[in-house]
Amino acid sequence: MPMKWISVLLLLQLSGHFSPGSCGKVLVWPTEYSHWINMKTILDALVQRGHEVTVLTSSASILVDPNKPSAIQFEIFPTSVTKDDFEDILMRLTSKWTYMPKYTFWTYFSKIQDNIREYFDCFQKLCKDAVLNKKLMRKLQESRFDVVLADPSGPCGELLAELLKIPFVYSLRASAGYTIEKYSGGLPFPPSYVPIVLSEFRDHMTFMERVKNMMYVLYFDFWFQTFSEKWDQLCSEALGRPTTLFELMRKADIWFIRTYWDFQFPRPLLPHFQFVGGLHCKPAKPLPKEMEDFVQSSGENGIVVFSLGSMVTNMTEERANVIASALAQVPQKVIWRYDGKKPDTLGPNTRLYKWIPQNDLLGHSKAKAFITHGGANGIYEAIYHGIPMVGLPMFADQPDNIAHMKTKGAAVRLDFNTISSTDLLNALKTVINDPSYKENAMKLSRIHHDQPMKPLDRAVFWIEFVMRHKGAKHLRPASYDLTWFQYHSLDVIGFLLACVATATFVITKCCLFCYQKFAKPGKKKKRE
Amino acid sequence: MPMKWISVLLLLQLSGHFSPGSCGKVLVWPTEYSHWINMKTILDALVQRGHEVTVLTSSASILVDPNKPSAIQFEIFPTSVTKDDFEDILMRLTSKWTYMPKYTFWTYFSKIQDNIREYFDCFQKLCKDAVLNKKLMRKLQESRFDVVLADPSGPCGELLAELLKIPFVYSLRASAGYTIEKYSGGLPFPPSYVPIVLSEFRDHMTFMERVKNMMYVLYFDFWFQTFSEKWDQLCSEALGRPTTLFELMRKADIWFIRTYWDFQFPRPLLPHFQFVGGLHCKPAKPLPKEMEDFVQSSGENGIVVFSLGSMVTNMTEERANVIASALAQVPQKVIWRYDGKKPDTLGPNTRLYKWIPQNDLLGHSKAKAFITHGGANGIYEAIYHGIPMVGLPMFADQPDNIAHMKTKGAAVRLDFNTISSTDLLNALKTVINDPSYKENAMKLSRIHHDQPMKPLDRAVFWIEFVMRHKGAKHLRPASYDLTWFQYHSLDVIGFLLACVATATFVITKCCLFCYQKFAKPGKKKKRE
Repeated sequence: MPMKWISVLLLLQLSGHFSPGSCGKVLVWPTEYSHWINMKTILDALVQRGHEVTVLTSSASILVDPNKPSAIQFEIFPTSVTKDDFEDILMRLTSKWTYMPKYTFWTYFSKIQDNIREYFDCFQKLCKDAVLNKKLMRKLQESRFDVVLADPSGPCGELLAELLKIPFVYSLRASAGYTIEKYSGGLPFPPSYVPIVLSEFRDHMTFMERVKNMMYVLYFDFWFQTFSEKWDQLCSEALGRPTTLFELMRKADIWFIRTYWDFQFPRPLLPHFQFVGGLHCKPAKPLPKEMEDFVQSSGENGIVVFSLGSMVTNMTEERANVIASALAQVPQKVIWRYDGKKPDTLGPNTRLYKWIPQNDLLGHSKAKAFITHGGANGIYEAIYHGIPMVGLPMFADQPDNIAHMKTKGAAVRLDFNTISSTDLLNALKTVINDPSYKENAMKLSRIHHDQPMKPLDRAVFWIEFVMRHKGAKHLRPASYDLTWFQYHSLDVIGFLLACVATATFVITKCCLFCYQKFAKPGKKKKRE
Repeated sequence: MPMKWISVLLLLQLSGHFSPGSCGKVLVWPTEYSHWINMKTILDALVQRGHEVTVLTSSASILVDPNKPSAIQFEIFPTSVTKDDFEDILMRLTSKWTYMPKYTFWTYFSKIQDNIREYFDCFQKLCKDAVLNKKLMRKLQESRFDVVLADPSGPCGELLAELLKIPFVYSLRASAGYTIEKYSGGLPFPPSYVPIVLSEFRDHMTFMERVKNMMYVLYFDFWFQTFSEKWDQLCSEALGRPTTLFELMRKADIWFIRTYWDFQFPRPLLPHFQFVGGLHCKPAKPLPKEMEDFVQSSGENGIVVFSLGSMVTNMTEERANVIASALAQVPQKVIWRYDGKKPDTLGPNTRLYKWIPQNDLLGHSKAKAFITHGGANGIYEAIYHGIPMVGLPMFADQPDNIAHMKTKGAAVRLDFNTISSTDLLNALKTVINDPSYKENAMKLSRIHHDQPMKPLDRAVFWIEFVMRHKGAKHLRPASYDLTWFQYHSLDVIGFLLACVATATFVITKCCLFCYQKFAKPGKKKKRE
């Protein structure tokens, strides 16, 4: 056998993929923006390994562009929701969160929960248009898929899997208050050292932080219970039997959580939870000629990369000017992804781009710092390449992501709405000139790169495992079959306490009886 | 670059070992019998990867044979314990457990706990003779080890690591009542679905089983607290500052648990717990000529492999005869590891051997069933090769191991002391002739073989990781820095309840005050 084939076979065996030749059919229920970017990385890898990948998406879909040539197939179903409506809802959701002065947790969450409901209602409409579309469902049935890959932040994947009677795999960054992971995934969540998403706490909390964390947990628990009613109706209607969304979600065979211990604080997990953060990261590719020239012109000082992500492309003129004037004062060259009007204070060292090859820039040898909104994808690219960060978090998990990086000493956090030019300038100087930030970023990078298996390979392995074995039932914890009071052993504790109480009562009664009968001879005698 | 080197580099990268050339120094604090067999597999792999492995062992050591040629180095220190004493203690520990009629959990455990104490006292003497031996400790200091590998079922490794100021890694099957993992490792242990070791429960328990499981947990919790005092004294004396054994144990960077989800029921874990069960398993090698001939003579019927492990080599004549007469009635050929007097009822189809190549026999195409005492190593060999089992558990975790296999449908459990020939015969017929047993054993085998990375590679990876990064601090949960009432949020719950009580009290008082002041005008008027 030629050396080439031996090495290929060894590679396949070592990377855990020992089913070459057997290809599966994957059905995908995607969500939008950065979630889709992350999911697409997995899909590309699956396609490359010879699997047939079909993305089920509505005619309102935004980033899922079926016209772009791709090996991924798209199954588009008609929906009454228009693309503009859908985009509007997503934008409203983020703009409510964005550009707000720093509210407290309660104000913050109460202000956005209507938008969250609106988002989920829209997703439900899309889901309904899919699962109640008989022609579509027949086609999907006939396609004989092996597995559904879905993001629980946009439900429907679990319902599709149940209708098609196939296993499914989830991919999730984190749900509000970790409620989905907790209630549907059964993930243990000790509030004493696992800070809730949106809290911005560290794993080492003060007493008052632990009190707040507990209150947030209770709030989300309550909020989540009131939230799923409409979904339960849809699921029951589609399946023709009474069921709940959580009951279906609970059947997920594998959960991919898009963080790892370079980012996440260590916390309890379950065997079917795979922490695959940064699976989309890859080595940098060469930059376009014009950009490379600009980067090279920075000399020893290097460059600063600045992006607020794919959902925030412009800002008020005032904010843009404050930022631009700070950037003008650093000796580095700055590459800024910005789609708005050119700020008046823009320095000659700063160039604006409508889109930037962010990963290639962060992986460039001249990259010194990354100004980021704190999206998980961007943070992971910075971790991958070991670049310290200045965080300007906007919404969702972003403040929390930046808080994690700050705790690990790899980022400075600023408030986008209130910073002055000096604040931004000082923060940039700090992360570039204080060597501890670079060291800590490099430490995270080393942790990220030094895993038994690359996160993307791990994700692909487990999807293939689920296809090979028609699920991963051996990883399903028995806690799924317990009620909440059984899970917490409250019935057992109650029973044991009742036993102790009964025993105490009986013994006391016996003692009293014996005392009265035998230990008071005086009394008896007197009577006689 | 020639193809050969490219593939070697790729292999190294894919298997996660990307530090070729950099070799470390590993110090090992071993325990005896099957624990040592398991540990040695890891040591051999480390030696093969170019690391320097030194086993620190006393002159009383049994299975660690420094005279046998080996690439592993042995550092032997003198101890007042004699080899015979040590062997006696270990044998007493097992013989108390063995050949007893099936006691209840409480009788069982109360009978052996004195022996357990005796065992730990002996280990403490060995530990004392090592850590207070100044010459030895100086030599170890000068050797500049990178990591200590230890089994917490025989403490001292953590103390050595603390004295040498190096990280350490644990390898453990399971401690009594999971107390070590829980108190030192911080592993969550919900008694509602994680059955305690020695209970023989499944993960799906009835109400009364959950009550019992909870009581066992409470018992072990109490037992463990009273157990460590002597060790705390030794640790404090050796380190010259007050400390406890658990405090030192808690510093373990990685915990290898010698089970996996083919064997273990799914349960919560922590990121620094690696379930590496069956790491010693390997494909079968050819049998010795005489044995192969005997095996081949079985024809279509195949063979039954029978061993009660390395600690139980003989039994009473009566038991031997009962077993032999059952074996004589099966159409299979039987290979029995047995060191006692040849039973009178021994059939011509059964051959006795003082030692058998168990793994090679179980991996033989003719293997049909395995009669086993239920040691974790043997069970894993049966899982690896997909062989159904008849369990005759003896002591320690064995009844529990067999209970796991029984739950998974791959074994029948019998009681060694009370079985008749018919019981054993029926059990053997069942596991051989009922296809579900073979199917279930094969299912476990498939799960075992279909992991992202082989368990031994994973163990080696994490030991090397700890050497490369001088620990694995990024995996250390913050719960380690909480007291037990903080961990369970009892202080927070108390505070919140106090707040609610105070608020209720104040509001009630205010309402009463207002009512008396304003809402009772009649009264006021009357008075006027």
